[in-house]
Amino acid sequence: MEKDLKFAVFGGGSWATAIVKMLCENQKQVGWYMRNPDAIGFIKIQQHNPNYLTSVTFDTEQLNLTDDLNKAVNDADILIFAIPSAFLQTELEKLTVPISDKIIFSAIKGIVPETGLIVGEHFHETYDIPFKNIGVITGPCHAEEVAMERLSYLTIACADTQKATFVAKNLSCSYIKTKVTKDIIGTEYAAMLKNIYAIAAGIAHGLGYGDNFQSVLMSNAIREMKRFTKRIHKIDRNINDSAYLGDLLVTGYSTFSRNRMFGNMIGKGYTVKSAQMEMNMVAEGYYATKSAFLIKSKLDKKVKTPIINAVYKVLYEAKNPKKVFLELTEKLD
Amino acid sequence: MEKDLKFAVFGGGSWATAIVKMLCENQKQVGWYMRNPDAIGFIKIQQHNPNYLTSVTFDTEQLNLTDDLNKAVNDADILIFAIPSAFLQTELEKLTVPISDKIIFSAIKGIVPETGLIVGEHFHETYDIPFKNIGVITGPCHAEEVAMERLSYLTIACADTQKATFVAKNLSCSYIKTKVTKDIIGTEYAAMLKNIYAIAAGIAHGLGYGDNFQSVLMSNAIREMKRFTKRIHKIDRNINDSAYLGDLLVTGYSTFSRNRMFGNMIGKGYTVKSAQMEMNMVAEGYYATKSAFLIKSKLDKKVKTPIINAVYKVLYEAKNPKKVFLELTEKLD
Repeated sequence: MEKDLKFAVFGGGSWATAIVKMLCENQKQVGWYMRNPDAIGFIKIQQHNPNYLTSVTFDTEQLNLTDDLNKAVNDADILIFAIPSAFLQTELEKLTVPISDKIIFSAIKGIVPETGLIVGEHFHETYDIPFKNIGVITGPCHAEEVAMERLSYLTIACADTQKATFVAKNLSCSYIKTKVTKDIIGTEYAAMLKNIYAIAAGIAHGLGYGDNFQSVLMSNAIREMKRFTKRIHKIDRNINDSAYLGDLLVTGYSTFSRNRMFGNMIGKGYTVKSAQMEMNMVAEGYYATKSAFLIKSKLDKKVKTPIINAVYKVLYEAKNPKKVFLELTEKLD
Repeated sequence: MEKDLKFAVFGGGSWATAIVKMLCENQKQVGWYMRNPDAIGFIKIQQHNPNYLTSVTFDTEQLNLTDDLNKAVNDADILIFAIPSAFLQTELEKLTVPISDKIIFSAIKGIVPETGLIVGEHFHETYDIPFKNIGVITGPCHAEEVAMERLSYLTIACADTQKATFVAKNLSCSYIKTKVTKDIIGTEYAAMLKNIYAIAAGIAHGLGYGDNFQSVLMSNAIREMKRFTKRIHKIDRNINDSAYLGDLLVTGYSTFSRNRMFGNMIGKGYTVKSAQMEMNMVAEGYYATKSAFLIKSKLDKKVKTPIINAVYKVLYEAKNPKKVFLELTEKLD
């Protein structure tokens, strides 16, 4: 890999901010696109993001901030997307310059609702990016702890190990350790599925189930994730690695997870609509549930996914959560 | 199995109390030994344990309470031990009647300090109980949630599946689901090892590591537990089953776990002695750490256990936790 490949990060949220922070530890210049010009103006003066990870201060000399998506694309070789999957397509519609020669890394956890594809597949199918130029950055990692410089481990996946290693090197620093893998499909599916399991954990909590049940739920969830990812893309992976089990745990056990919070409200009796209105956002896992359910329904060889099925019934068939989870408890062990 | 086999529970703590409660859902009479006659007197009048799970009320007509260990043994066929492993030997020294014809189930998580054996092995070696008459009752299960009748899943292990099934049936009720397995060695070791990992989680927390690191630690812990149990007793087991991973999670993520609390104090700078004095008890994982370290050191074929090694260094070699854990972070991924 050439040493002077340039990075640009796309997104203005907490995970994008955390990634820019890590890159600034290693790169002299980092491109940073966000759609909100006010936020850009704020960062330039106040040296921190006005809305997310506000404690993180930047040396603005290092940042090439822009609200022009095409400029950010043009100026960089490696594009890291950290835009919520629900908004990705809308942003990408602004593209007027080609991206087929770029290296694309996704730091997005979820499914692109318009195509029902995970982000890597979406770039591959819609923008003709070869898989060797597509990668994934995955946790377990709360952005908030990156802001506090608390030790975190990232997994960088790419079919081309050289590229994974290059990106990994540029994210590594005193508080970030990295690991590379070729399992881009598995890590992306895991990152998506864990949000569904976090919703399940939230629903269970909302219904009054306790810590004993939560641990059984997570133990069943990781087995379900193993079956699911194995059926989608069978390669030699240890589902207990940080990128899979670690990522599930950091989300499933986090009371700050928006997916878990959403589930919790459903468990407490909110309707899906009112929970979404109350939260003023749609949790990623909401879309993930539909996509995962559709994907597994289309598989030739069936795969047992009682937890996904239960969450689907609650979110998309308006079934009573209490009843659905009572049935679910019979299927866990 | 004969239907009229009689149960006796040994122990006066919260887990013993929870087990008596479950048995009372299925059995007309349950033997209950505890060494403290005052507690027995209290239960007979107030219908609840004065010290543990005080919200659980008993129909005292169902209970055969006694502080005479030999009487409790004599009157029962299936003996369930729920005495902290550190006190087991002292209690068993009171035995004057034979127990070789009894069925012994251990609900103890830990190592018998005097022999360095897990409880099943201890009964086998010291009391000549054949393995077909030895079983294990394991979680994931906080006794406090049994008291609240929150749904919990137990795993009952015995080489003799009929006996496991019989005990499982007598513990099952509306809030307890059970599963049987033949893996008595693996479930016991898992129950012991998880306490060491809970101490590690506590130390990390005390040192200021966050949730991201905690999830990486747990992800490494389950892989270490898999290697360890496989080396000790190689059978076909799924380490992600509730009895292994679930049990690890319910302890490692519990802020109420005494092992985690002990680790936390060590991480915050207490010495081992002062933490034990402050807690007014010795956490099970303290003994487990020494035993696990000795056991693995004696193995012909080495097994990689960086977490156990780190905890051992802190607890038994008075090494600086901050330094030891900094080294540990290099070994995790």
